[in-house]
Amino acid sequence: MNDSPDTPVTVIGLGRMGQALAGAFLKAGHPTTVWNRTTSKADKLVAEGARLAPTVGDALRAGSLTVICVTDYRAMHELLAASDIELDGTMLINLTSGDSAQAREAARWAEQHGAHYLDGAIMAIPPAIGTAEAVILHSGPRPDFEAHRPTLDALGTVTYLGADHGLASLYDVAGLAMMWSVLNAWLQGTALLRTAGVDAATYAPFAQQIAAGVAEWLPGYAEQIDAGSFPAEVSALETDARAMTHLIEQSEAVGVNAELPRLIKTMADRSIAAGHGGEQYPVLIEEFGIPGDH
Amino acid sequence: MNDSPDTPVTVIGLGRMGQALAGAFLKAGHPTTVWNRTTSKADKLVAEGARLAPTVGDALRAGSLTVICVTDYRAMHELLAASDIELDGTMLINLTSGDSAQAREAARWAEQHGAHYLDGAIMAIPPAIGTAEAVILHSGPRPDFEAHRPTLDALGTVTYLGADHGLASLYDVAGLAMMWSVLNAWLQGTALLRTAGVDAATYAPFAQQIAAGVAEWLPGYAEQIDAGSFPAEVSALETDARAMTHLIEQSEAVGVNAELPRLIKTMADRSIAAGHGGEQYPVLIEEFGIPGDH
Ligand SMILES: NC(=O)c1ccc[n+]([C@@H]2O[C@H](COP(=O)([O-])OP(=O)(O)OC[C@H]3O[C@@H](n4cnc5c(N)ncnc54)[C@H](OP(=O)(O)O)[C@@H]3O)[C@@H](O)[C@H]2O)c1
Ligand SMILES: NC(=O)c1ccc[n+]([C@@H]2O[C@H](COP(=O)([O-])OP(=O)(O)OC[C@H]3O[C@@H](n4cnc5c(N)ncnc54)[C@H](OP(=O)(O)O)[C@@H]3O)[C@@H](O)[C@H]2O)c1
Repeated sequence: MNDSPDTPVTVIGLGRMGQALAGAFLKAGHPTTVWNRTTSKADKLVAEGARLAPTVGDALRAGSLTVICVTDYRAMHELLAASDIELDGTMLINLTSGDSAQAREAARWAEQHGAHYLDGAIMAIPPAIGTAEAVILHSGPRPDFEAHRPTLDALGTVTYLGADHGLASLYDVAGLAMMWSVLNAWLQGTALLRTAGVDAATYAPFAQQIAAGVAEWLPGYAEQIDAGSFPAEVSALETDARAMTHLIEQSEAVGVNAELPRLIKTMADRSIAAGHGGEQYPVLIEEFGIPGDH
Repeated sequence: MNDSPDTPVTVIGLGRMGQALAGAFLKAGHPTTVWNRTTSKADKLVAEGARLAPTVGDALRAGSLTVICVTDYRAMHELLAASDIELDGTMLINLTSGDSAQAREAARWAEQHGAHYLDGAIMAIPPAIGTAEAVILHSGPRPDFEAHRPTLDALGTVTYLGADHGLASLYDVAGLAMMWSVLNAWLQGTALLRTAGVDAATYAPFAQQIAAGVAEWLPGYAEQIDAGSFPAEVSALETDARAMTHLIEQSEAVGVNAELPRLIKTMADRSIAAGHGGEQYPVLIEEFGIPGDH
């Protein structure tokens, strides 16, 4: 049977994020039980109607599902090691940040103890929780996700990625890499334009347009990667590499940091040295797929 | 008087890009004169109705405006040094790639010779020329741009950036930095997801959404830069830095190249070391604005 707004839920871990999660469940009308190592962090939630469980075991028994959000996987394993805990049949949804190996290991451990386990990653800040802006990624058995989706919907835009428990962490860090890369490229451009007296607000819409425009190429470029074939339909990597030199020289000439431009060219040069200069940009996947020598 | 479809134009330099430019002018109905060092590259255009000028001086006299597109600024200066050339009163639009200093110097040189001069940069590949997809940036005196805009429109989406002749080159490389950064972040994510058996086509729409979403933040973040004040409204740099460690460790753990993640963290760490850990991401502009120590 699937969840309804009456479904009782438990939130374990009431740091900044856990408090936001519990608050969103309460707001959606779910009877909400909470537990935190430092009890006082539950005060505000209790005032809003949450029930504070005296032990982790008690907290787990109260909800049809338990969302865990603590500092790291080690903290989760520590608190789940308490003696009064019976995991058999419980539904654990772990929204603690970690890596794919930790997620898969936690899934194995939970299954050995008879628990259902979904791993998740929160791509949002606490104040966004409960709004559509908060993207929350989930991976693990699809039936578990589907059964509890109506409840999880209270937290934000919930997404299911696949059965491999490691997927949520992987998508999470991949998305963060995109976030910081767009921001850094924008800062690089902003620093360049400022040398000509152009303010950040004037340059930003241009950067925004390029980022969104290039993003649209990705599905097409992905086809080349999946096919393992990189014909230079748009342009050849060695043509890109020449323009990369312009970017480096321009940055150096006006006294702007050139580390990002140089890393961009280093990756391309390696691929060209490996014989791919006449192929198209996505052929660089081969460089990203190996550890590199630095 | 502004240009009309009858305005005669000249294109100097018939490499891959110059041929595309001349072809677009012809298609729009402009009487088109061309010149190229290697005469044979004009054959196709002459068959389409272009007139081949015997000398650069003759070519310059034929058009109301002359578009130059050769390998580099040096090539442009070389070909404009021919003895029969009278630049006084000519309108030169240089779409050759170069840096802001070369553009400003060329403008000074052209003005000393009595020529009008606009500097430009082509953010497109030759087959896109003549379509709206081809973004062509211009900088220099606005009246010159406005007078010839109707003619330049035949080449693509033409944009005016400002009076400083260096702007087109700066926006060009800034845009390229964004392009390669979005692509590299996507490749980083694709490489990470492939370790879990996720193909590039499955991951691409996720990356696309993140890139476009983050791009929307830029105008707001730009306000912080212009105000020189970086309150942590969304999150603090030191929170980002912790997640950057996850990205690095995740990449290393699955054998994916971690150079881009490490550069991201290096920039953030420097800013944190400079005392900005409690401020918001755009405070990193200060790191991008200085040459850096590598
Ligand atoms: N905040 C964000 O913007 C954000 C965004 C996305 C993801 N996340 C992720 O969400 C998770 C929680 O973040 P947060 O911001 O809520 O962190 P936080 O405010 O520092 O809270 C950490 C929580 O973990 C608990 N904890 C730590 N070690 C424990 C242990 N050994 N046993 C029991 N409980 C322990 C703390 O309990 P005490 O109160 O007793 O110390 C507290 O409830 C992290 O994995 C973080 O990466 C956070
Ligand atoms: N192709 C692209 O995708 C693209 C995109 C954006 C910007 N651009 C820029 O557009 C410009 C031209 O690129 P392209 O692709 O057309 O290059 P290209 O195919 O290599 O053609 C180079 C052109 O420059 C001429 N040239 C070189 N040195 C010369 C000299 N000393 N005197 C006279 N002419 C000389 C060549 O004449 P010969 O034929 O006699 O050798 C030829 O017409 C470059 O600055 C490039 O960065 C190109």
